[in-house]
Amino acid sequence: MAVVTLDGGMHTVGSAREPFSIQSVSKVHTLTLALEAVGDALWERVGREPSGNPFNSLIQLEYENGIPRNPFINAGALVVADVLVSHLRDPERVVLDFMRARGGNPQIGRDSAVDDRTRRDSHRNRALAHFIRSFGNLVNDVDRVLALYSFHCALRMDCVDLARSVLFLADRGRCPSSDDPVTSAEFATRINAVMLTCGTYDAAGEFAFYVGLPAKSGVGGGIVAVVPGLMGLCVWSPALDDKGNSLLGAYALHRFTRMTGLSVF
Amino acid sequence: MAVVTLDGGMHTVGSAREPFSIQSVSKVHTLTLALEAVGDALWERVGREPSGNPFNSLIQLEYENGIPRNPFINAGALVVADVLVSHLRDPERVVLDFMRARGGNPQIGRDSAVDDRTRRDSHRNRALAHFIRSFGNLVNDVDRVLALYSFHCALRMDCVDLARSVLFLADRGRCPSSDDPVTSAEFATRINAVMLTCGTYDAAGEFAFYVGLPAKSGVGGGIVAVVPGLMGLCVWSPALDDKGNSLLGAYALHRFTRMTGLSVF
Amino acid sequence: MAVVTLDGGMHTVGSAREPFSIQSVSKVHTLTLALEAVGDALWERVGREPSGNPFNSLIQLEYENGIPRNPFINAGALVVADVLVSHLRDPERVVLDFMRARGGNPQIGRDSAVDDRTRRDSHRNRALAHFIRSFGNLVNDVDRVLALYSFHCALRMDCVDLARSVLFLADRGRCPSSDDPVTSAEFATRINAVMLTCGTYDAAGEFAFYVGLPAKSGVGGGIVAVVPGLMGLCVWSPALDDKGNSLLGAYALHRFTRMTGLSVF
Amino acid sequence: MAVVTLDGGMHTVGSAREPFSIQSVSKVHTLTLALEAVGDALWERVGREPSGNPFNSLIQLEYENGIPRNPFINAGALVVADVLVSHLRDPERVVLDFMRARGGNPQIGRDSAVDDRTRRDSHRNRALAHFIRSFGNLVNDVDRVLALYSFHCALRMDCVDLARSVLFLADRGRCPSSDDPVTSAEFATRINAVMLTCGTYDAAGEFAFYVGLPAKSGVGGGIVAVVPGLMGLCVWSPALDDKGNSLLGAYALHRFTRMTGLSVF
Repeated sequence: MAVVTLDGGMHTVGSAREPFSIQSVSKVHTLTLALEAVGDALWERVGREPSGNPFNSLIQLEYENGIPRNPFINAGALVVADVLVSHLRDPERVVLDFMRARGGNPQIGRDSAVDDRTRRDSHRNRALAHFIRSFGNLVNDVDRVLALYSFHCALRMDCVDLARSVLFLADRGRCPSSDDPVTSAEFATRINAVMLTCGTYDAAGEFAFYVGLPAKSGVGGGIVAVVPGLMGLCVWSPALDDKGNSLLGAYALHRFTRMTGLSVF
Repeated sequence: MAVVTLDGGMHTVGSAREPFSIQSVSKVHTLTLALEAVGDALWERVGREPSGNPFNSLIQLEYENGIPRNPFINAGALVVADVLVSHLRDPERVVLDFMRARGGNPQIGRDSAVDDRTRRDSHRNRALAHFIRSFGNLVNDVDRVLALYSFHCALRMDCVDLARSVLFLADRGRCPSSDDPVTSAEFATRINAVMLTCGTYDAAGEFAFYVGLPAKSGVGGGIVAVVPGLMGLCVWSPALDDKGNSLLGAYALHRFTRMTGLSVF
Repeated sequence: MAVVTLDGGMHTVGSAREPFSIQSVSKVHTLTLALEAVGDALWERVGREPSGNPFNSLIQLEYENGIPRNPFINAGALVVADVLVSHLRDPERVVLDFMRARGGNPQIGRDSAVDDRTRRDSHRNRALAHFIRSFGNLVNDVDRVLALYSFHCALRMDCVDLARSVLFLADRGRCPSSDDPVTSAEFATRINAVMLTCGTYDAAGEFAFYVGLPAKSGVGGGIVAVVPGLMGLCVWSPALDDKGNSLLGAYALHRFTRMTGLSVF
Repeated sequence: MAVVTLDGGMHTVGSAREPFSIQSVSKVHTLTLALEAVGDALWERVGREPSGNPFNSLIQLEYENGIPRNPFINAGALVVADVLVSHLRDPERVVLDFMRARGGNPQIGRDSAVDDRTRRDSHRNRALAHFIRSFGNLVNDVDRVLALYSFHCALRMDCVDLARSVLFLADRGRCPSSDDPVTSAEFATRINAVMLTCGTYDAAGEFAFYVGLPAKSGVGGGIVAVVPGLMGLCVWSPALDDKGNSLLGAYALHRFTRMTGLSVF
């Protein structure tokens, strides 16, 4: 676990500098980049409601004409990737540079074995991409979009990198060390809100109840969280619960908010 | 609109003392009473996840064996009412006394015409109750449970009453004037979390994004909201958006959090 | 098993004169009476498509505005019962007389214990009825409709009675002994079609494949079937498969059509 | 419209020799070939129940672990095509030869423009194929399976060809002119049953009710039908109803069965 405060303090426990596959945690960062690229127009192509049920991903796409429920389910992250492919010259480069700058670590890279395996095996994501494309809500070549998606999911970072990487969301969109704007205060607030209601798969309600912080988890076992106005956090522990969130990671965040009183509620 | 702070300050604008039918706003208060009655055992009978889609109420009940998704959808509020019928001698009296004590207004009463009409016409709630009962998750007579449900939905309160009535949720479960505990700090935190993720029908994600406060709306046009550690709020404006939330009420809360920076995010 | 031919022949094997609870088999007869009462206008209130999935009963009602998928699922049979309550002075009497006349047995009666139990315990049917009523597609008092529904499901008949009772469907709507019309040739054809596509719960496709005759099953273990132009059949064996159809009954009908070549296909 | 009887009679009206794109009508023929290839083992990979609702295709696949509901919905036809790719050396050749032999017309060919367009544009079928593959119920390369699928849908035949092509289904699996077996009597019966319950998209119940024959429609406006023991039929008229069946074609078949009494019911 790593805790990084806006005033530069850093506290770690355990394997906080052990890199792991960040997987879906990266969707926070691609969402930020997509909002910078197209602004609120993004919300015409992806919603911001919890998905409710696992099965909703597909049935909901069908009923809602190919508009994914939120940017953190796979369908939504594919639309976000499609936006980046459309608006950036070299989106993999931009994502990597963003991660290195936000994480303050120029060594951040991708795990090419994970990337290749994801790209090759992901029939379900490919199904989602073609389905969304059949509604016209994905405009680039499906292979191109999946390549970017699997690239950003295959990045390797450690808890300190990731805790730092969300500090701008705790600081109203600014980088706390340089005071440079990363995104607007309004977008930072909105990203936090989407993290709280949609960031932990089908357990967002449970997570709000149990932890009470904007957070985003990945199947690699990492979870980032934000205490607005104060700090960024990251926990990592590979064993997942049945919803796909790190079991011990969620428990650590629960204990943290209960001991500190830092839940947003 | 009424804003009531923990230190006793009160600010109102418009028809803040005009009583209206509180409808589903009352589900916050019956949830509080049910948690006091049975504690965390309540969560074995009702979940705490957003419902996702309007249609989920029924299909979800079927798939999840009669366990409503959360205490704020009608199915969940019926289970909460069933708990109160089981554990309280005169639940209508207890609910009314709780509302009068929390709202600081002994004049609070019910609108008997609304109550009668609701009880008579509500074939959909009756369908839900029988359906839940077919799974064994409702144990009292359906008519008895519906009577309590329609009673608490038919209470009439004004914005000041309602803003005061949620102050204990801003004050870690205590009544700020008397410092008496209403519920535990832990339950207060959890009720706020459920309000944020489930309090505004199928628009909880949108509402978190747009307002960023724990809130509960009713079809009477009222919305209560909580700023943890600071204040309770209530807005009222009868015109509803297509999700059933007060259109101007949501806008007023949006402007409030944007002008004050008091969103939890 | 009982086989009764249009020319008056009768062949039985096993306990063909042992009365049993006919349950949903009675829906064929109430459908016939409802078509006589209101003609094709019935199809504005109930469809004639297979329901597809068990869970569809409810979700489908919601999406299709309270119009049950077909007259043989419970929701549809409740609408049929509602039509009979609206159009007949004493519908229980009319149904009983119809069964006695068609079955050629004045001793046919109901099992009052089954009737009472069904009426008391059926929270799911009550849920369906209130739900349909919330859409305005059930106009009589829910208790009244459920009383008729549980009455016709609680009738007791034996295989010979039931095989005779569907002879008019094999004879283009006429009673083969008296040559009197029971319903029109067109309605007889249509009822057979609905039996084939919707008569055996969620296994209609399987049943068409395996047996190949218009048929209607009940959870009492009875199944009636029709060979158009030739005969009526009834099998009875209480053990049910996982779809709710008599396991040995279906097997007997399968063997029958394979040995005789009398499948409609 | 073309009517071809088992004894060699042929009756046509209108543009019965005008070739059209047979589209989904071809699924009857690929099903026959797949049953010949793997026998009843096919039913472990595809069901034989009506799909119920349009949206079911996807949600049903998810709940039923990638087993399509029946071989006539697109998902099921893709699994059938996958079987043919696995078991035939040159499946396009085999399908084409089968069509020419059954239709008695060596000129039958494919419309390459339709084929190319289908293959290129069909993001929804591609989504289905990847989704089924994610469950392991499609084993060949998705592009290869889609190539065969679009090939057989792009065949061009006229009403006479198609009426002849289903004669074996009216003659217990034999070719009526040569008396050679095309498939077993049992498989012919079963294919007819699946046509009746699943052959006309979400209107199978309506079609059984209105026409009363085993039939398979295509979006090109063609419908084949079988009168067991007597004849094969084909109608063609391009305008479709809202379920995707030829509007005038269905009406012509309705009039035909009503005038001749040849409905199976």
